[in-house]
Amino acid sequence: MSKSPSNPKGTRDFLPSTLSKRNFILDIIRKNFKLFGFLEIQTPALEKNSTLLGKYGNEGDRLVFKILNSGDKIKKANIKALSDNKLSDFSDSISEKGLRYDLTVPLARFVSQHQNELVFPFKRFQIQNVWRADRPQHGRFQEFTQCDADVIGTNSIIQEIELIKLYDSVFSQLGFNDLIFKINHRSILIGLAEYVGAKSKLNEFISIIDKIDKIGLDNVIKEVKKLIIDVSVSKLSNLLGENEISIEKLDNLFKESIDFQKGIEDLKIILDFISVDKSFNNEIKFDITLARGLNYYTGTIIEVISKSNNAVGSLGGGGRYDNLTSIFNLKNTSGVGISFGLDRIYLQMEKQKMFPKNLDNNFDIIVINFGVYYLKKLYPLIDLLRQNGKKVTIYPDKAKINKQFSYADKHKVNYAILMGENEFEKNEIIIKNMTDGTQFNYAIEKVNLDFFKKN
Amino acid sequence: MSKSPSNPKGTRDFLPSTLSKRNFILDIIRKNFKLFGFLEIQTPALEKNSTLLGKYGNEGDRLVFKILNSGDKIKKANIKALSDNKLSDFSDSISEKGLRYDLTVPLARFVSQHQNELVFPFKRFQIQNVWRADRPQHGRFQEFTQCDADVIGTNSIIQEIELIKLYDSVFSQLGFNDLIFKINHRSILIGLAEYVGAKSKLNEFISIIDKIDKIGLDNVIKEVKKLIIDVSVSKLSNLLGENEISIEKLDNLFKESIDFQKGIEDLKIILDFISVDKSFNNEIKFDITLARGLNYYTGTIIEVISKSNNAVGSLGGGGRYDNLTSIFNLKNTSGVGISFGLDRIYLQMEKQKMFPKNLDNNFDIIVINFGVYYLKKLYPLIDLLRQNGKKVTIYPDKAKINKQFSYADKHKVNYAILMGENEFEKNEIIIKNMTDGTQFNYAIEKVNLDFFKKN
Repeated sequence: MSKSPSNPKGTRDFLPSTLSKRNFILDIIRKNFKLFGFLEIQTPALEKNSTLLGKYGNEGDRLVFKILNSGDKIKKANIKALSDNKLSDFSDSISEKGLRYDLTVPLARFVSQHQNELVFPFKRFQIQNVWRADRPQHGRFQEFTQCDADVIGTNSIIQEIELIKLYDSVFSQLGFNDLIFKINHRSILIGLAEYVGAKSKLNEFISIIDKIDKIGLDNVIKEVKKLIIDVSVSKLSNLLGENEISIEKLDNLFKESIDFQKGIEDLKIILDFISVDKSFNNEIKFDITLARGLNYYTGTIIEVISKSNNAVGSLGGGGRYDNLTSIFNLKNTSGVGISFGLDRIYLQMEKQKMFPKNLDNNFDIIVINFGVYYLKKLYPLIDLLRQNGKKVTIYPDKAKINKQFSYADKHKVNYAILMGENEFEKNEIIIKNMTDGTQFNYAIEKVNLDFFKKN
Repeated sequence: MSKSPSNPKGTRDFLPSTLSKRNFILDIIRKNFKLFGFLEIQTPALEKNSTLLGKYGNEGDRLVFKILNSGDKIKKANIKALSDNKLSDFSDSISEKGLRYDLTVPLARFVSQHQNELVFPFKRFQIQNVWRADRPQHGRFQEFTQCDADVIGTNSIIQEIELIKLYDSVFSQLGFNDLIFKINHRSILIGLAEYVGAKSKLNEFISIIDKIDKIGLDNVIKEVKKLIIDVSVSKLSNLLGENEISIEKLDNLFKESIDFQKGIEDLKIILDFISVDKSFNNEIKFDITLARGLNYYTGTIIEVISKSNNAVGSLGGGGRYDNLTSIFNLKNTSGVGISFGLDRIYLQMEKQKMFPKNLDNNFDIIVINFGVYYLKKLYPLIDLLRQNGKKVTIYPDKAKINKQFSYADKHKVNYAILMGENEFEKNEIIIKNMTDGTQFNYAIEKVNLDFFKKN
């Protein structure tokens, strides 16, 4: 038995003050998911290893938390694999299930499994925790919350527009108006590779230019040259060296590439649409270097970053994927989705002091406790207040009154209700305003609910 | 790669229609937790094995899902333990963490760990999933949601009263008014054991009489006689054979037992309090056989059952425990708490058709999709509707209109908004009432929000 117990490294306890802020963000995300016509689903934390493994690459597989088989099943441990240092064979022999690594593979599994119960196109949102066996370090957690909205079963560009509007709506309501929604398209990345002569090593090329924000143009050029000897350095550095490349300019430069026409078309429609939208609060910007998890996205790619604080990383991201459900044998089902980075949004809002002040007000009213005898007479009023949506706490003990008031102050309570012996005899209560200290006597049956409602 | 993927046995996918009902229940529970002054916390799904194991008895320990250590750490597997058939030593050598089995041990760990950050008495609620490696069978799940409210750091009887009021408030708002809140007290169980001469085997005795609803009085007597040869069968059968035993009668019968006085006092206060409460919607009833997890509760014991459907089992339960945090070295901290059985409440409400009908209305309004060109003109109206809290979905594709209407019907949408070529030219929209089929043209800038608000 541990003398000083603690939660495992990389995990977090959420105390009420932190949780109320997280819930503030999640409530706004959830509300907007619903307003935009997404339906909520939930999937289990546990998935079969056969569902999870092989979907995230070797590095991802390594980070899946595996569940040890129960009871006698662990007798089947493959000892030979262990002595041969085949660790994954060994773990496969004693584990059949794991904790979900993200919400995307479970979504693909869900859609494939329940295809006959769902109405397509299927717009779903999901807000649940995921787990990764990352080495715990600053800002990396082994358990965190993902907030995803996806549309499965349509390739209509209106979904990209709706998802960008959804981003803008959520972030505006959270108080952000200085964000950049970066946008790109897989086929523009392919067009770029063609244009500079890097198509033979497409994926590696894209990974390198994706890193430009971190390593800078010079290093990008250096790495690309190492990858492909006869790449056109001048074309590449001219293009990427420009502060902003317009879609129109690309249209001209890339006109010989067939691949990239679809991307140009899509992005033009999206940018046209948003440009006439007067209610759009943030900025949308084409970024030819944006790739984000390149093997995954097949069309539009979106990322949300903060203009004022680039260091925090992206606050969200998403894109279109055409082949996701096909890994579970559901073909021809295009999907597009976005995700909100709860932890980063939280950090950014905390830093910019964006949370409303009243989130910390735990209760509206505290009832000072003079004992059960008095509380019995007060209880109909307490019932009434709660029925009218007031958060009422009765101080748990019949303690000294100063202790009770100090508890009220710590919880930032607005009002205290008191009924001691004097008031009890006269059928009265005292209502004390905890902010300014004023207090008034009221006949108990005449307490005006409006008084609390206004406050 | 699995051809027909599925979720693991014993776990569940929640589709939108089921989830909206579960959330209906959870929202009411959560709202009332807050109205009664409880603060929300969350703890990680993963806890150290040293926190979890040894707290639930052997059977419980067996049901804890253990996480396989990551990476090279599994090289430390204790092969000898495996070949000696010491399975728990073997699993201890490759696992340091497990999934939480309930919310109570994590609460005890949390309170002990964060005692200097919390204000006591600490009223917390927690709604999170727990996992148990139970054999999957009818109505038993390996992952389920627990909803707990607990007060830590006071032994005041007002907490028991508040928790019973909380139960009544939640269940009333869910639509239940035929429940029985059974109540008992650990010291009355001890008094009973003394009275019939069974105190030498207290725990076993209590376990047996706890089963009376399942096995009947005769079998209880039989088992007790087997346990203690010189037990007073006549006293026991007289007492348990009565339809209802009043507290007053016990007070008389047990007057020689010192132990049980505390229980009598507590229950009298609770029953007195509730009996004068006109707003109490369900029934409270003393039950001398109620024990519920006997090694755990040290004071009051509460259980909620349905009068009309006993078979579903308890819809909730709780009680007072004095020694919980002491397992993590925080002494003298009495706690009392209750729990809601979400799955059983759901089943019971489904059976009695208690869910509101409109939970299935996924969206308020569908916008029929004639293409991006038209939608661009409509979008300010869509923005406005969403800003006013209307759930608006744009049909994802520019599909045939019948397909779009059929989608609307499947989702029980109230209104459709249409803007085709004709309407576009005239700056009009059509609003179609999907329930009665009526439709009207409106100038787009004159669309009256009140029209949708009322509906």
